[in-house]
Amino acid sequence: MALPTTTARQRALAVGLVGPGRVGSALLDQLRAAQPRLARAGLDLRLCGVAASRRMWLDIDDPELNGRHDSAQTWRPSNLDDFTAHLRGDDGRHALLIDCSASDAVASRYAQWLASGIHVVTPNKLASSGPLDRLQAIQAACGHGARFRYEATVCAGLPVVQTLRDLLDTGDELLAVEGMFSGTLAWLCNRHDGNRPFSALVREAHALGYTEPDPRDDLSGLDVARKLVILAREAGWSLSLDDVEVQSLVPPELAALPADEVMEHLHLLDASMARHVAQAQTQGCVLRHVASLDAKGHASVRLAVLPVSHPFAHTRLTDNIVQFTTHRYRENPMLVQGPGAGPEVTAAGVFTDLLRIAESLEVR
Amino acid sequence: MALPTTTARQRALAVGLVGPGRVGSALLDQLRAAQPRLARAGLDLRLCGVAASRRMWLDIDDPELNGRHDSAQTWRPSNLDDFTAHLRGDDGRHALLIDCSASDAVASRYAQWLASGIHVVTPNKLASSGPLDRLQAIQAACGHGARFRYEATVCAGLPVVQTLRDLLDTGDELLAVEGMFSGTLAWLCNRHDGNRPFSALVREAHALGYTEPDPRDDLSGLDVARKLVILAREAGWSLSLDDVEVQSLVPPELAALPADEVMEHLHLLDASMARHVAQAQTQGCVLRHVASLDAKGHASVRLAVLPVSHPFAHTRLTDNIVQFTTHRYRENPMLVQGPGAGPEVTAAGVFTDLLRIAESLEVR
Repeated sequence: MALPTTTARQRALAVGLVGPGRVGSALLDQLRAAQPRLARAGLDLRLCGVAASRRMWLDIDDPELNGRHDSAQTWRPSNLDDFTAHLRGDDGRHALLIDCSASDAVASRYAQWLASGIHVVTPNKLASSGPLDRLQAIQAACGHGARFRYEATVCAGLPVVQTLRDLLDTGDELLAVEGMFSGTLAWLCNRHDGNRPFSALVREAHALGYTEPDPRDDLSGLDVARKLVILAREAGWSLSLDDVEVQSLVPPELAALPADEVMEHLHLLDASMARHVAQAQTQGCVLRHVASLDAKGHASVRLAVLPVSHPFAHTRLTDNIVQFTTHRYRENPMLVQGPGAGPEVTAAGVFTDLLRIAESLEVR
Repeated sequence: MALPTTTARQRALAVGLVGPGRVGSALLDQLRAAQPRLARAGLDLRLCGVAASRRMWLDIDDPELNGRHDSAQTWRPSNLDDFTAHLRGDDGRHALLIDCSASDAVASRYAQWLASGIHVVTPNKLASSGPLDRLQAIQAACGHGARFRYEATVCAGLPVVQTLRDLLDTGDELLAVEGMFSGTLAWLCNRHDGNRPFSALVREAHALGYTEPDPRDDLSGLDVARKLVILAREAGWSLSLDDVEVQSLVPPELAALPADEVMEHLHLLDASMARHVAQAQTQGCVLRHVASLDAKGHASVRLAVLPVSHPFAHTRLTDNIVQFTTHRYRENPMLVQGPGAGPEVTAAGVFTDLLRIAESLEVR
């Protein structure tokens, strides 16, 4: 049911954004557009600051600009201590920090912010997939009421982390996860039929903006492994990145090159990938880039040869897909599928987390 | 992240169940198993009563039995007024009523209960898909803080209603919904390859317990149409059952028979279904039972001839699937797929709604 028009609970939420890049900017647009609707539903969402790496804006500097973020803003040098002190305020208000940076230094501050009562929401994978002791400190800091949410770290706006959480919270047990968590690698595997060299497809994907600036960052499988670690930990398994068996598509000779020489040496990918696709075709199968976690806690990211009847064989070009096998869904698993990257859908995943926290706020 | 162990917010929630049938009993089992875990997370869930159609149990009658539901219980004649008065209590506690009945009379009381502050959660489709004025009264009654949730009305425990809600609440716009909302009809269409008469498949599905006792209740498409109405209304479209163009698979001669003569006259289904599947096969396509809602608000439930490349062509036997096309997901839609029926997964969908409400409770 739609957010009800209500007079029952008027709650105020101060929001600060760290990292106004592509996702952060899309989120600011979405929040701004939603403010009137949220106000009718009893939520007074107030943007109190935006911090980039070098400079920041606080609403006290431009009170008339609230909710807008334009060139007339007054910027001061960035200082995250001052930023969060301002965000928290001194009147016991609800405060929420959104980290849309890709910064490990910012992730290292979550525990401290949460302990001081600031909710944290992020699409940044570094805290959830990074050192386990840092994540445990973050979890411990949540014991006092502030919440940490990160739906958009896995498959952007697709309902993945919350879905797994709901399965577990209602008493289900996770048996296995399989997924394709990289739209880039999904596209490359979908298109790689052996007719064109794999390197030509990587060049095309690069030109289309589907890959990272250095395509090795996609082809290494590391980003996919991070997502698998996040889901495993969500299910209570103490997995770390080092525990994931990752089959990198990047041969050592290509890995050794400086970044500016990579694009002209992509042909180094071709021999191995041609063998893989030929092997799949000989068996009447398809090649897919699959992350999986089994009931014994074994985690891997690799090229898999799948029968054409497999659900992963029929995804649309750049789709992500995740399949949960649980005690309740053990005969037929649950699947969620769709685009798993892009500023708008990633921002919407962050926004959903914000709404989930806002629903739980007490009137102050 | 797992429900944190917390001392920050201890909330109590009184729960009453109407309709202890297969879903209701599965839910009682799940709630009972979860109580210790929820208590550690700060939620004191207390089962205060269970009402069947003729008799009811209140915890004041057997204080030592709380959370259990067994043969030693003291039952009294059912009276929903007394039941809800007891559930609400007189100390301003949070109260939540779960309706697992299939009763229209119970659905007619939601508005009154919500207005009195009792949250309502249900897998019963009658309120959400029934008369629009009744649903509007329910929505109006939510304006004072009590909440009405019904995730399990569509595809049981799959994240469908909440996913649509999140898309809309974050500012996305629904353009179209397509889905297969009947596991029974999905199974029948998947298996119907023209080699065996359709009636033989219906008999087999009936013997396996996949169909309603009277299989016409599945074949009519009415239950699927109700789910489509629920999703359309979720998106703010004032659709009613009468607005859905429903292609019933039941020919008039079969529809006219009394219930006890249906099974021996299932052959009346065969000629028409054989034509449909032959037509699909001639085009190299498959036959699927599809509910759809387009951007113009046109809603239909029908047999569709789909190319083998369509995502609905490759579902597992009894899977439900729903595809949302929205402004943000307009190139590649979002898909959720999996078993959409069964007591355990339906109960888990209800339980998820309960948890969502519990998260939002203020400490009292």
